This record gives sequence, structure tokens and C-alpha cells, in this order.
Amino acid sequence: MKIIVDCLGGDNSPAANVGGALKALARYGDLQVILVGDEGPVKELIPDDPALKDRIETVHAPGVITGEDKPTDAIRLKKDSSLIASIRLLRKRDDVSALISTGATGALVAAAILRIGRIRGVRRPAFCPVLPTMNGDTVAICDSGADTDVALEQLVQYAVMGSLYISQVFGKKSPRVALLNIGTESEKGDDLRRRAYPLLSSTPGINFVGNMESRDLLSGKYDLVVCDGFSGNVLVKTTEGTALELLRKLKKDIFSKFRYKLGALLMKDMFEREKEFMNYQNYGGSVLLGAEKIIVKGHGSSDADAVAKCFEQAVTMEKNDMNGKIADALRAAEGQGDNGNV
Amino acid sequence: MKIIVDCLGGDNSPAANVGGALKALARYGDLQVILVGDEGPVKELIPDDPALKDRIETVHAPGVITGEDKPTDAIRLKKDSSLIASIRLLRKRDDVSALISTGATGALVAAAILRIGRIRGVRRPAFCPVLPTMNGDTVAICDSGADTDVALEQLVQYAVMGSLYISQVFGKKSPRVALLNIGTESEKGDDLRRRAYPLLSSTPGINFVGNMESRDLLSGKYDLVVCDGFSGNVLVKTTEGTALELLRKLKKDIFSKFRYKLGALLMKDMFEREKEFMNYQNYGGSVLLGAEKIIVKGHGSSDADAVAKCFEQAVTMEKNDMNGKIADALRAAEGQGDNGNV
Repeated sequence: MKIIVDCLGGDNSPAANVGGALKALARYGDLQVILVGDEGPVKELIPDDPALKDRIETVHAPGVITGEDKPTDAIRLKKDSSLIASIRLLRKRDDVSALISTGATGALVAAAILRIGRIRGVRRPAFCPVLPTMNGDTVAICDSGADTDVALEQLVQYAVMGSLYISQVFGKKSPRVALLNIGTESEKGDDLRRRAYPLLSSTPGINFVGNMESRDLLSGKYDLVVCDGFSGNVLVKTTEGTALELLRKLKKDIFSKFRYKLGALLMKDMFEREKEFMNYQNYGGSVLLGAEKIIVKGHGSSDADAVAKCFEQAVTMEKNDMNGKIADALRAAEGQGDNGNV
Repeated sequence: MKIIVDCLGGDNSPAANVGGALKALARYGDLQVILVGDEGPVKELIPDDPALKDRIETVHAPGVITGEDKPTDAIRLKKDSSLIASIRLLRKRDDVSALISTGATGALVAAAILRIGRIRGVRRPAFCPVLPTMNGDTVAICDSGADTDVALEQLVQYAVMGSLYISQVFGKKSPRVALLNIGTESEKGDDLRRRAYPLLSSTPGINFVGNMESRDLLSGKYDLVVCDGFSGNVLVKTTEGTALELLRKLKKDIFSKFRYKLGALLMKDMFEREKEFMNYQNYGGSVLLGAEKIIVKGHGSSDADAVAKCFEQAVTMEKNDMNGKIADALRAAEGQGDNGNV
């Protein structure tokens, strides 16, 4: 199995990316990696071990795409960037099955949608991040922003693809799928949501449990939330933003008085666990579901462990032939849809 | 000035509702109130003061609509409920200028949209709650769920109505208006957002500062966020839900160990301020902007002070003739739109 690593664009690149790849190489004996980035610094990070020599390839592409770059411009103008070079390699080389990046999300998703094919039957790939829930579990959100003008059929595809992803990679049997809506009753929401509800209810192979209000995202009652990319983006970023702002405020307030600092000292290990709990990179990367090849986007702040976690996701998906299973499941779901005159 | 108070449906009804009305009567000498609810308990809460006699009217409507009731069913079937009776009174009586309720949001908004007229020029009323920001300021969100199938023109109307509301009631000059989007660049988002951006930029009388990503809602950089009712609902409920779940988790973790409890004891007053800070009822009720008469929805958990705060909002809007100003501003904005061939 051969996996490309985009070694630039993250806060800790290239050390975290190369470090994560080395951890994965140690773990998976049949793994080979292609490290794409500024070749000099990348090569310096590779230990001088003859056993590794045949398993690591490097490709020189020193340009960096940042969150400030407009994705469509970046794709057109930054052809020497590690991100675009990685996508190009992923497209061209049949021996490569996956790409891991900690770079700019917008450019990665846009380039992947433009340049990488889709699994047969998939209308459009969807971005699927995972967040921690308050009971120590996780919840996946699909789509979190790959497509903002979504059609009814896509919501069903998100449910099918996301369910397979969660059961394969997170080992959850029969993941509970909810539709993001403004109320729990079946007739709530706009036209799209009112039509999606019965369709999701009758889709075979998924465990649809109804509408979810956004305030219940972290409750642990759901494994997968399907939504259009616009409201999914709002859902994920509001959760992250609120948590971050609250922890920041708490910290500021603690430092405002000696007595509070003393109190916080007694709770130091607890606060550290709290912070670790809210650290999204502990929960793996976001996957672009529906793309012909596996693409995992790690958090920008990923360290080597977080990148290794992305490898774990990619390897599990590849070994389980998740994309093949998605094609089969979509065919089955579609057949059902036709019978039901949807 | 005469204001109706729906005295049922809140967690602390009718005591909080009647108590809030009494506080407002003490504050505003020219105020009269109509208390709608279960007349027996309501009357028991009114002090035996002859000066108040002429200023308080009661109407018997003992039915309660809860969040469990489907709004459309509730409107049709619960005609004896305090909420529906209040809406009926608001519609019928020309001497009444506002309604304050702490009851079921869905039913209130639906009944108001069906039964109360709109300000001239308004396409559809919008719900506008206010949240606290991390720098001690507030941010308003319009629309948070009154209309999920929104047209381009409505987003502009939300900006105009919301700006007037914030400047009148919160005393902010030239409130900073942002468009909720999945990125800050002008070309981000779906078709609706890409068309709204230039239109908002050229609308006279508002201070449009560009797109806002949802993670920046609490940053204090914006006074008003305009959005469709679906994503606005997601924005508000995700913020509330995340804050609530985090505080709940923190509390649970503190109680898990004696040492943490000791630490928390040293920070008791800080945590209490934190809790008070996150208590949404401290920031006033949500207003249904665009309705012909003023409607303020207080939080379900409102106490008498929170209801009094809703009165303050309603009185300020009425004294400033906010609805008249909205009609004028919409006419001005529309004229501009025509000239610009929008």
C-alpha cells in the first residue's frame, strides 16, 4: 500500500508530517510512502536506515498554499505547491491509494473535486470531520462544506457513505444517522429537509433515527449527522469556535486573580484533560468521502501522532475496500429509490 | 402604552411574567398591561394597590402550549391557550402595541406570522435573538428560524431591520453587519450568499462589513449577523448547546475529585459570574422583526427581571417608533435597489 503525504501547509510541517509517516511505516510493514514537499528539509528528517530506503520516495514541490490563498487561484497558480503536486501524483499514479494532508482545507477539497475522480454513482464528494461528544464518544458530520448547493439525493448518499465510513473506521455497528434540522418532528425545516426525511427513512442499509437539532450535536445520541455543506460548515465551526472562545475566556479570568490561579493549580490535571478532550486532532482527520482515492485532511495543528492517526484511518479504509463498498451500497440504495419512485 | 403579557408557557410562569409586568409598571408611569393566562393564579399575584387597578387588565385563557406541541396544530386546536389568546388580542385591539411571551417559540412565531400583519414593505418577519460576546458586548442574529426558504431580498431586509433594532434598543451607532458564510472572501458560499454580498455592500443606511465565519460569532467583531433561518437556527442553537454541554462537563469533572472541588471553591465567585455571563436571559428577549406590532419572546427560563428586560425592549422600540422607521428605511433601501438594477 502506497500513501502520499503532503509535507507542507500545517503548523508543524514538515516535521509532523514526516514524523507521522515514520510512525506509520513502523506500524504497517506493507506500507510505502511518498513524501511531497521541500525535498531538502524533508530528507533531513528521514533517518539513515537502509530498511526504510525502499519504502520512502520523495518528490520536490516546495510551494505552500495557505488559508489566505483563494482555492481556485491556488490551484491555477501554485502548481509547484506540495498540495497541488500531491493531488497531481494521486491522480496520475495507479499504485497510490491515498493522500494525507495537513494543508489548506479549501484548496485541498477544491483540487480533489476538480482533479480526482469520483466513486461510481457518487454525485459529489463530501467532507466528513469527526468531533468528540460529551460522553467520550464521537460524532461525524457530513457534509461540512464541500458542496453548499446540495440536491436531495446527495443527503442520502452522505448517509450511506458516512455510515460505511463510521462502521469501518470507528468500529461502530449500525451507526445512528440523523438529519440536521431546526426541530425534531418529521415535517420540520425547509423543502429539502421535509423531502429528505422520508427518503432517509426508507433507505436500506442505514440506521436513520430522525432529525437532530444542532444543540444536541455533542449529546452522544448520534454517530453521524447529514446536512448540506453550508449548514454543516456552520455546525462544525460554531462548535469549535464556541468551545475555543469559552476556554480562552476561562483562562483569562483565572489569570485575573491570585486566588483563582491557586484554585486552578489544584485542578491542573483536570484542565489539561479538558484541553486534550477538546483537541480535535486526537480524533483523526476529516475524510473526503466519495472521491475515487482516499483523502484524509489532518488538522492544521497536527503533530506526528495526529498524522499517524490519519494514516490509521487511510490504511483501515483501504484494507476494508471502503470505496468499493460505497459503490455497492450506493447501487443498492439507488435501486431501492427507483422501486420507491423517489 | 398598552402591552400584552402571555402569562403561561415559561418555566417560571405565571410568577415571572406577572412579576416582570409589575416591575415594568413601576418603572414606566404611562404603561398599562393586559395579563393573559389562568385568571385565578394571575390575580393572586397582583398586589392590592388601587393605583394599579386601572393599569392592569386580565384575560382568562388557561391553556398552555409547550415545545412538544406541533405549532400548526397548536394554533388550530389550542384556541383557549394564553399564547393564541394573546395573539388574537394583539391583532384585534388597536390600543395595544406589543406582546411579551416566554412560551413556545415555534408556536409564537408561527401564530404571529399567520395572524399579525407585516410592516409595509416587509416580505416576511424574522426572528432576532441576541447572544453575549466574549468581550462583554452582544451580537444579534437575524433570522434565527422564522423562515427557512429565504429569498435574496429578505437578507437585505434583515440587515436593515436588524440595524435599526440594534441602534435603537442597544444604543449602538452604525452597527457592524456581517453575512453568515463559510468563508470571509466575497465570492464564498452558495449562489444566495454570492448574490447577497454585493447587494448588502450597496444598501444605504447599513454598515456592512463583509462575510463572517461562524467560528467568529462570539469574537465581538460584529453587532448583527444576517442569515437564512435554517443556518441561523443552527448558529444560535449550536452556540447555546456547546456552551451548555461544556459547562455541564466541567461541573461533572469538578465533582469527580475532592481536590477539584477544593480548587473550584476558591473560584466560586468566578464560576458564578461565568454562569451568569452565559445566562441568555440577561441579554433580553428575541424580537420578531417586521411584524406590524412589537413581539418580544423571552427565554423559557426567564425570571421576573428577564421579563422586565423584555418590557424595556418593547417600550424602547415603541417610543422610538421603530416599526415606522423600519418602513421608511425599507422604502429607501428598495429605491436604491431599483436604481442599481438589482
